[in-house]
Amino acid sequence: MNTLAAYKKHLQEIGKLRSAISLLHWDQRTYLPPKGHAARALVLGKLAKMAFELLVSDQLGHYLEELETQNDLSLEEQASIRVVGKAYRRQKSIPPDIYERFTIAQSRSESVWEQAKKTSDFELFQPHLQKMVDFSRQFAELYGYEDNLYDALLEEYEPGMTTNQLRLVIEPLRKKLVPFLKQLREEGTQPHTEVLEGTFPIDQQRKLSSHVLKAMGYDFSAGRLDTTIHPFTISTGPRDTRVTTRFINNNLFSGIFSTMHEGGHALYQQGIPQKLHWSGLDGGASSGIHESQSRMWENMVGKQLPFLRFFQPILASVFPEFARARPEILYDAVNTVTPSLIRVEADEVTYNLHIMLRFELEEQLINGRINVGDLPELWQDAMKRYLGVVPKDDAHGVLQDVHWSAGMFGYFPSYMLGNLCSAQIFAKVKEEIPDLDEKIANGKSIVLLSWLRKQVHRFGKMYEPQDLLQRVTGERLNPSYFTQYITDKYSQIYKL
Amino acid sequence: MNTLAAYKKHLQEIGKLRSAISLLHWDQRTYLPPKGHAARALVLGKLAKMAFELLVSDQLGHYLEELETQNDLSLEEQASIRVVGKAYRRQKSIPPDIYERFTIAQSRSESVWEQAKKTSDFELFQPHLQKMVDFSRQFAELYGYEDNLYDALLEEYEPGMTTNQLRLVIEPLRKKLVPFLKQLREEGTQPHTEVLEGTFPIDQQRKLSSHVLKAMGYDFSAGRLDTTIHPFTISTGPRDTRVTTRFINNNLFSGIFSTMHEGGHALYQQGIPQKLHWSGLDGGASSGIHESQSRMWENMVGKQLPFLRFFQPILASVFPEFARARPEILYDAVNTVTPSLIRVEADEVTYNLHIMLRFELEEQLINGRINVGDLPELWQDAMKRYLGVVPKDDAHGVLQDVHWSAGMFGYFPSYMLGNLCSAQIFAKVKEEIPDLDEKIANGKSIVLLSWLRKQVHRFGKMYEPQDLLQRVTGERLNPSYFTQYITDKYSQIYKL
Repeated sequence: MNTLAAYKKHLQEIGKLRSAISLLHWDQRTYLPPKGHAARALVLGKLAKMAFELLVSDQLGHYLEELETQNDLSLEEQASIRVVGKAYRRQKSIPPDIYERFTIAQSRSESVWEQAKKTSDFELFQPHLQKMVDFSRQFAELYGYEDNLYDALLEEYEPGMTTNQLRLVIEPLRKKLVPFLKQLREEGTQPHTEVLEGTFPIDQQRKLSSHVLKAMGYDFSAGRLDTTIHPFTISTGPRDTRVTTRFINNNLFSGIFSTMHEGGHALYQQGIPQKLHWSGLDGGASSGIHESQSRMWENMVGKQLPFLRFFQPILASVFPEFARARPEILYDAVNTVTPSLIRVEADEVTYNLHIMLRFELEEQLINGRINVGDLPELWQDAMKRYLGVVPKDDAHGVLQDVHWSAGMFGYFPSYMLGNLCSAQIFAKVKEEIPDLDEKIANGKSIVLLSWLRKQVHRFGKMYEPQDLLQRVTGERLNPSYFTQYITDKYSQIYKL
Repeated sequence: MNTLAAYKKHLQEIGKLRSAISLLHWDQRTYLPPKGHAARALVLGKLAKMAFELLVSDQLGHYLEELETQNDLSLEEQASIRVVGKAYRRQKSIPPDIYERFTIAQSRSESVWEQAKKTSDFELFQPHLQKMVDFSRQFAELYGYEDNLYDALLEEYEPGMTTNQLRLVIEPLRKKLVPFLKQLREEGTQPHTEVLEGTFPIDQQRKLSSHVLKAMGYDFSAGRLDTTIHPFTISTGPRDTRVTTRFINNNLFSGIFSTMHEGGHALYQQGIPQKLHWSGLDGGASSGIHESQSRMWENMVGKQLPFLRFFQPILASVFPEFARARPEILYDAVNTVTPSLIRVEADEVTYNLHIMLRFELEEQLINGRINVGDLPELWQDAMKRYLGVVPKDDAHGVLQDVHWSAGMFGYFPSYMLGNLCSAQIFAKVKEEIPDLDEKIANGKSIVLLSWLRKQVHRFGKMYEPQDLLQRVTGERLNPSYFTQYITDKYSQIYKL
């Protein structure tokens, strides 16, 4: 076997382990009975350790070293070596014993966080969060960086992105969004939402969600739809991408938009071609680009009039109480803006403000400019400044998200980048498919999927996110598409 | 770490891999989308190989060698070393390259069998079956045996059982069953079955099955109930034993008895105490003993009047058409005897005849006294002799079961042994719990479960099946309990 073949075989072995790990995770969050959790944690720990050992193995190091100098490789092979090489070097830079101590501390931290969130007890969580911060700072030093320690963490989720670049994006965004939100609240006309009220049996909601997924172009022969508490999408193998969603009895559209969001992630995964399977490139270009796909289907498709025109008769066929609900009325109702305490419940206008707050705090934490103990108060201050609302306790504030408890510093910006990229890409889509609205209204959103397949999905991780954005839209990240989209849409809905 | 601790740790590592493998299998047979199967086979292959390598590792060999001479071990530790040592030596006796060639041939054979069964094409399957026979003979030689090559294969599923012992059991059994069946058919009064007719929505059937499982004492917080095509029960971890069943639209009791059968397996697994988890003893004493538990709940409980008295009101609450169905009428109807072509559909009287036929053929195959090519004709002859019916094609004959395609020679007798043991154990239960019928009729079958837990389940694999039977019933395998049970029950139902 030559080195290239051996390299590919090695990646396939990692891929197989990850495939099993993904199924164990999926099951853990969907069907695992309560008493099965303790053993499952041990099983997952073992497989994760094996996958880690394969990734940092000297053998892989040798393959990479040899292949990095080889000049007869395909574009995909070159990209694979670049992406895998980067992951290899990042992981390799962490001494195994430190990494092991981290995973143990992480697991404890997550479970203490769960407890602390329930009782709104930040002090209980504080020492664990401190450990997560300390480990992350140590990792960042070991990964290496140029300007800002935080860049080394950002790199994990947004290759090529830096703190400085983020600031250049956030500053103008905040300057638009904060006053615009104020204007909406003070001068705008809040839409009526009575049309959405009612109780909707879960079984019927599930049918509706399956219908929507099918209409989006999701391939059920290469995936499934199940329910869970915190929705997620996962590929448990190259042709097996599973969507999970959640349904709320008295909030019908919550489940539909959750399904469309996860469906957007799933379409991206299903669009990755076979030649990239198990190559290290079989994922999204970055967390932000992945999020651009989910947010596009949720917001740029789902929360728009054309889709609601298509969807209203389907909705009425399952829930006859919607037979007379005009799509225009639904459109206004699902697009109300309400500054709220909880990120995952935020609307399109306020969502990014939640992210900015988190980015600013975590960037300062990592650089040691603020202390873990100051977080609750700093959180309150920032909420007041950005959103004008203040949480009554830490459970609705600094304790609300799981990310920090798992040491995932650097992840939050991806959510914002996803929003920005979705608007930028969608503007391009509308330019290239002028009758897109009509197509979507007629249930032909497949034209959008085909376009995304061709322009985005088929490349997997072959390009860094900014390079992909450049290829797709002709320019690098430009937040003005998003602000334009938001001000146009909500000025109209709020009759400004 | 001392040797004992290292040994236990090693077993736990094997256990974790097997746990992951079990989940991958469970998913494959319940929820895996069609396009996910190809990759799943690769993932399963990798994990199975890793588990195999851990089992035959020299390290484990050294631990065993050292511990086998140690004399301060607990009963459980001694049993673990005996059981694991046996498995180690059996696997170790097969050269890895032969084993690898076998697993590849096996996988092909199984998929060709599936095709051949569909088109009833024995010739297509013949060369693959030949390979499975050849491998099995080779394995049997390598495992070693005293009297009969087939004994070496039997040992896998029924430790301590031999061909000669089986013959001593089968001969009197056949001499009773074949004429009794003839008598039932010729002189008996076939019960009416109209009471069972109807169409029963699957969702309602599922509710009913959940209810029955709960009533049996199955712990849903350590397991689940799902549907599949060929029902099975699997432990995907020490506290996670999952039942699968299947429902037939127009055959309500098929689903109920399938659930009770699998539930019987699951109760056995759930009854294995924590101290045996991941010790190599966390399973049934043998396939036959495991089957005795499933058959007991299905036949000795489910297909009896006391249970049907308890069950009828529950049934009527879900399907009101049974409101006036008298338990006595249901009892007769679910216990009709019909010689049929397909083993898995066979009633209590004819089931063992299907097994005898398979045992005789496979024992002769393994000893080279008959040829693979002669099987279809030999099958037809035996069916005529034992059951008086002859399949119209091989799909309903020699091709019906998956076992041979996977090289599982030696497994079939377990089904018969399960039936015999269930009658023998149940006779003891009735002796020790004189009011068992009344208890079951009042929904208190938990007294049976408690008895089984104490007498059978809590030992896991600690004793060889015959030793366990001796402990539990005071004697070794005695088929007369079964023939007594069958002749009593069916003479009454058929008014002989």
